[in-house]
Amino acid sequence: MAESISVGIVGVTSYTGGELARLLQQHPRFQLCEATARSAQGQLLSEVFPQLATGPLTVTEQIKEAQIVFVALPHGAAAEVIPDLLAEGRRVVDLSADFRLRDPQTYALWYKHEHPCPELLKEAVYGLCELHRSELREARLVGNPGCFPTATILALAPALAKGIIKPAIIADAKTGISGAGRTLSLNNHYSEMNESMDAYGLEGHRHTPEMEQELTRAAKNGASLRFTFIPHHAPMTRGILATCYADLVEPLSESDIRRLYAEFYRDSPFVRLAPRSPQTKWTAGSNSCLLYPTVDQRAQRLIVVSCIDNLVKGASGQAIQCANIMCGLPEEAGLPVSGMFP
Amino acid sequence: MAESISVGIVGVTSYTGGELARLLQQHPRFQLCEATARSAQGQLLSEVFPQLATGPLTVTEQIKEAQIVFVALPHGAAAEVIPDLLAEGRRVVDLSADFRLRDPQTYALWYKHEHPCPELLKEAVYGLCELHRSELREARLVGNPGCFPTATILALAPALAKGIIKPAIIADAKTGISGAGRTLSLNNHYSEMNESMDAYGLEGHRHTPEMEQELTRAAKNGASLRFTFIPHHAPMTRGILATCYADLVEPLSESDIRRLYAEFYRDSPFVRLAPRSPQTKWTAGSNSCLLYPTVDQRAQRLIVVSCIDNLVKGASGQAIQCANIMCGLPEEAGLPVSGMFP
Amino acid sequence: MAESISVGIVGVTSYTGGELARLLQQHPRFQLCEATARSAQGQLLSEVFPQLATGPLTVTEQIKEAQIVFVALPHGAAAEVIPDLLAEGRRVVDLSADFRLRDPQTYALWYKHEHPCPELLKEAVYGLCELHRSELREARLVGNPGCFPTATILALAPALAKGIIKPAIIADAKTGISGAGRTLSLNNHYSEMNESMDAYGLEGHRHTPEMEQELTRAAKNGASLRFTFIPHHAPMTRGILATCYADLVEPLSESDIRRLYAEFYRDSPFVRLAPRSPQTKWTAGSNSCLLYPTVDQRAQRLIVVSCIDNLVKGASGQAIQCANIMCGLPEEAGLPVSGMFP
Amino acid sequence: MAESISVGIVGVTSYTGGELARLLQQHPRFQLCEATARSAQGQLLSEVFPQLATGPLTVTEQIKEAQIVFVALPHGAAAEVIPDLLAEGRRVVDLSADFRLRDPQTYALWYKHEHPCPELLKEAVYGLCELHRSELREARLVGNPGCFPTATILALAPALAKGIIKPAIIADAKTGISGAGRTLSLNNHYSEMNESMDAYGLEGHRHTPEMEQELTRAAKNGASLRFTFIPHHAPMTRGILATCYADLVEPLSESDIRRLYAEFYRDSPFVRLAPRSPQTKWTAGSNSCLLYPTVDQRAQRLIVVSCIDNLVKGASGQAIQCANIMCGLPEEAGLPVSGMFP
Repeated sequence: MAESISVGIVGVTSYTGGELARLLQQHPRFQLCEATARSAQGQLLSEVFPQLATGPLTVTEQIKEAQIVFVALPHGAAAEVIPDLLAEGRRVVDLSADFRLRDPQTYALWYKHEHPCPELLKEAVYGLCELHRSELREARLVGNPGCFPTATILALAPALAKGIIKPAIIADAKTGISGAGRTLSLNNHYSEMNESMDAYGLEGHRHTPEMEQELTRAAKNGASLRFTFIPHHAPMTRGILATCYADLVEPLSESDIRRLYAEFYRDSPFVRLAPRSPQTKWTAGSNSCLLYPTVDQRAQRLIVVSCIDNLVKGASGQAIQCANIMCGLPEEAGLPVSGMFP
Repeated sequence: MAESISVGIVGVTSYTGGELARLLQQHPRFQLCEATARSAQGQLLSEVFPQLATGPLTVTEQIKEAQIVFVALPHGAAAEVIPDLLAEGRRVVDLSADFRLRDPQTYALWYKHEHPCPELLKEAVYGLCELHRSELREARLVGNPGCFPTATILALAPALAKGIIKPAIIADAKTGISGAGRTLSLNNHYSEMNESMDAYGLEGHRHTPEMEQELTRAAKNGASLRFTFIPHHAPMTRGILATCYADLVEPLSESDIRRLYAEFYRDSPFVRLAPRSPQTKWTAGSNSCLLYPTVDQRAQRLIVVSCIDNLVKGASGQAIQCANIMCGLPEEAGLPVSGMFP
Repeated sequence: MAESISVGIVGVTSYTGGELARLLQQHPRFQLCEATARSAQGQLLSEVFPQLATGPLTVTEQIKEAQIVFVALPHGAAAEVIPDLLAEGRRVVDLSADFRLRDPQTYALWYKHEHPCPELLKEAVYGLCELHRSELREARLVGNPGCFPTATILALAPALAKGIIKPAIIADAKTGISGAGRTLSLNNHYSEMNESMDAYGLEGHRHTPEMEQELTRAAKNGASLRFTFIPHHAPMTRGILATCYADLVEPLSESDIRRLYAEFYRDSPFVRLAPRSPQTKWTAGSNSCLLYPTVDQRAQRLIVVSCIDNLVKGASGQAIQCANIMCGLPEEAGLPVSGMFP
Repeated sequence: MAESISVGIVGVTSYTGGELARLLQQHPRFQLCEATARSAQGQLLSEVFPQLATGPLTVTEQIKEAQIVFVALPHGAAAEVIPDLLAEGRRVVDLSADFRLRDPQTYALWYKHEHPCPELLKEAVYGLCELHRSELREARLVGNPGCFPTATILALAPALAKGIIKPAIIADAKTGISGAGRTLSLNNHYSEMNESMDAYGLEGHRHTPEMEQELTRAAKNGASLRFTFIPHHAPMTRGILATCYADLVEPLSESDIRRLYAEFYRDSPFVRLAPRSPQTKWTAGSNSCLLYPTVDQRAQRLIVVSCIDNLVKGASGQAIQCANIMCGLPEEAGLPVSGMFP
């Protein structure tokens, strides 16, 4: 039997940290040997998160053994601990926004502070496996994509790569509340958000530059985009649905477009074309992204609906997928492909 | 004290029928004297809907006394009973789609059958009070707007009337499940829809022609629209949020646009500009529409967020608002303006 | 037309405060002239709560004019401001727990601090209108019942008053999350509570002594109770369902029991016997309590199911009902009897 | 590598059928080779349930190869097909109620029809693994427990086995709506059930005799129970929480009771004592049962809170657990122990 690879989680008390711990329990090769969190040091992980049957695993202060480290800290905090982890010879998948953008000035503009280690940005690989698989193999540092960017980029990359749409794009996204994490706020207070929808980030959401960077890279001829991204809160815990709109360059049938998308993701085990308009819940608990590209024939617009579980393909599952590739394992090792429904 | 006006409900066992009965209990002048439904004849209304404290009111087969009749039947069925109600001298507010479109051919195209009484289409008034207040005063037959059209038209009419946007428009709408009514289907089966979102009607939703008709009428110079409307199911009972996108003709500040909208709805007691991005739940149980117009300055796009309660302003409340105008009462008589939150 | 009575709300930014403001808008005689809150002084109430179309009403620091004051502060804080309000000649309905218990020692035991003005406890009337209607007429200070006690006491009072059950009672209650108020906590964080149920207060919930006090008073012969009360969080915003269990003293048919309950509440406009097992949502937004008493014939146990809206009959609506009685108005003035469903 | 064991699902289009297919994908030894359903013959399973990435697996009419068959049909229908499956030499785990009761008369009384093959009732093993592990090893036919019985029996068996409680027991259970399956009805229509709770089965729920049978078997001295079971609908998809109440025979501390429970389930990998009052969601997607036994010291009552995922430990997961034992595999093979939270 193959040897196990030791992995650790920094910031295990976050939702993405807990989800990493849950998913790693089913992994054939990764062995969760360490989990840190300032607030819960010394506690059993199964007391912090009683849903986890992790037995004697105790939350510690610092990573000591793990070869692969998943960092589940807020942006800013992540960039503070990562240089040391790398210096100690570990490989890092960072779930925060700190290593997603290539340009430190864009980072400073959207995150309102200078990047603490801009020299690492060049090296970091953007961890959207479906687009950057080969770079990930040797990566030492991965900037794991945001949840909205994952759903949106996967929805639009094939159309942009093939040049079938004009660069004026609207992405209207709906997210479950777990995307806001575990930090208390009226924005994720039960009675405020339940049975209600609202748009937010209307003045500009921080995931926008990440999407612009990757969509521009994916575009056939690097055309500059006119891109509007509007996220919405949906009264559910998990799930992102992104509805993406762009004008077609020339008329195309729906079956042409489905063929083009199927071809683009032929070797991607987690991206599937849905047989009909997909529900976010079809992806719950899984690392899958379900796409449904279609055409409004009256208006000659491409519409692509994209669904993921924001905590899995939009965060912790994708991080494990990255680590699988980094370690030369099968991309889908230990990751559910089927969703939990209902 | 002023005399009461007798009103009746045809199809009281539907959600919109029950909501009419609830709202009418608080009305200062309308007296619900009759409620019909084939399936529940002879039962107390308070047994059919135990939430209603309507005492001895019994469901009957046929309208006999009411001066004003609200018809809450499915499309097709409504048009079958309405000619007789009119012939008996009653005035009718029809909550179905049967008298919303002016053109019988458009009706036949989208509803897949010939209109049974096309001659009445000319006479019928489209019951969006904010746009057709004066026509409603003398109306004998009102086609009460659909829930999506109400939210969307109120969001876009000011911008189109003032000519500040180009006619390429996208409306991405999210609705609570009660919009699908009380008819059983997997599409409103609890376990299928809960904790999930999906887009539907991607091949063309029946509310589209109604919006095109009214938005074209509202537009400054009647420009022909290139209009895409995509509805989504949201896991909540009530509420519609429409997010509307259109390119600006020329740069405008957010405050200019807010002023323009405030001016347009100055005399409309149910339409308010929200102080910040509104939640659907702020309108729950009320007849209000909350609008939030803003600008994506990077892309020069107008974005208007619009919230209503689909069963009140999107159906039964609006029907009563129409009837208020028809009877020369204050437009807001008996209708809640404040939402039930949380 | 009758003169209006000026009322004020202390602590208007709480959920019960907002709900008072909403309900008072529909009241024929009470005029909301003042609303205070330390955190929101100087703001328009309609900015704090955009669901409220309260126009120019601004949040202030102190009550100055109101004849009737509703106090919607946390326990402890309420008892600090109420003596002054009374000294100024106002009448007070306190929605906190500060004036519900008659015995200052019981208060100290359960609330972990001495009662600041125990002399007022003698005077205060427990505001469960159905049981204390006559005392309320002249009351200067009312301790408005808790939400769980309202549902539970109304469920059990008839059976205890008639002596048909033994005094070993279990009340298993389920509440929507709004019962926990607007204070941030993991216990009302959306992602923690959504799609989940749990029991809480297993070590003793603070509403217990209040129920014991009132159930003992209601009991035919003042038998001492052996009473277990276990509340549960339900993943919904509003609503309480209490399922109450007690052994019958002697066999009784279901119809006997329904007759006994109907008789007991004959003059109570807000308490109704449900025609079948009631849903909490049948009471949403209304001041009604729906009761369904039945018998487990195999075990000879009385089971009473009781439903209310915790923010209306369980808080703000009941407070207005008390004030109606205090002012000699019809008990149901301005209060919805029918629930908002679906 | 160990050989795979071929398994099949009869009635794969039900929720429990789909859940079996999902869980079996992660099983190390069971190979899902066949899935039948009259309504979906010839369709890809991944079209019927797009959440399932089951590739080319097509729904068929009849089981042909499977050594182990999971029957996910309604009661009545299950008993019609199972004799043939057994005659063909297959081993069967039946998820319906058809083989849970030992006494055919009890079956006839509660299910309103004669049992079609009463001779098999003697042979069938009640598949609650924690209580019947040894009988399951050789079983040819297993009656997989109902969801409510699983939660309730596991909660009460230790106390009854040790004789620490009196036989007057109340179980107040709350279930997610998926327990009602996929058959359309107003009882699982989204808008009716969302944001609402109600009690049902007040006239006697069919799971009652199953609980009485097993609780009596578990009881130290076979005392006859006085047992009341009341289920409630909770507005969530998955999860059961049972709150069980019984008087203590003599005073016991909470730690004594926790020790007794821990000892009872020492060798049961799926039953854990929760460190604090458990949430149903801590078990979501897992085969775990979380127990929290405690004491109301004032009333000297034992209270046990029990949580499961009704579709996993309450149905499909438990069925696989049974099959694991039948095949001599580790009891937990292929079954998640940790829950998906949030």
